Amino acid sequence: MDLAELQQLMQDTYGAADTERGIAASVAWLTEEVGELAQALRKGDYAQRLHEFADVLAWTASLANQAGIDLNEALQRYANGCPVCGGIPCACAHA
Amino acid sequence: MDLAELQQLMQDTYGAADTERGIAASVAWLTEEVGELAQALRKGDYAQRLHEFADVLAWTASLANQAGIDLNEALQRYANGCPVCGGIPCACAHA
Repeated sequence: MDLAELQQLMQDTYGAADTERGIAASVAWLTEEVGELAQALRKGDYAQRLHEFADVLAWTASLANQAGIDLNEALQRYANGCPVCGGIPCACAHA
Repeated sequence: MDLAELQQLMQDTYGAADTERGIAASVAWLTEEVGELAQALRKGDYAQRLHEFADVLAWTASLANQAGIDLNEALQRYANGCPVCGGIPCACAHA
């Protein structure tokens, strides 16, 4: 799925609720989902990890919609290699 | 950018460093980036928000690579509407 498609899907599914909730409350939701992903990675199974990765991406895309950010534009930061050292592979371990 | 393309880009750029670092340390990095995104959304400008959204996506994709998760497969969870109520738009506000 292209990130533009993900953002549109989130807009269609949650756009109205997102606008009503606001950015700060959505940051709280994203943080909760990152915590659930951390737990799934520590002690979850494959299905739980799939579920939590999807939720983290969904809330990230919803937040981007609210903030007026195009995720494809954002990822230009990585398109030509590590943004710190320029390497593919990175020679600085993204430090 | 398709999520498979993002995962491949992260593998090419950071795969070796990711393997050496391990999942727990990568979870810590992702958490740090989510904090930076929260700050950029609260008081940053457009360029800072672009930067932090990219970093959150990059670390999410790196973690997915380490965990053997295909993000496109994960997002099937949202492909047919809200995973809780099934609605497009969601009728339960993803509660």
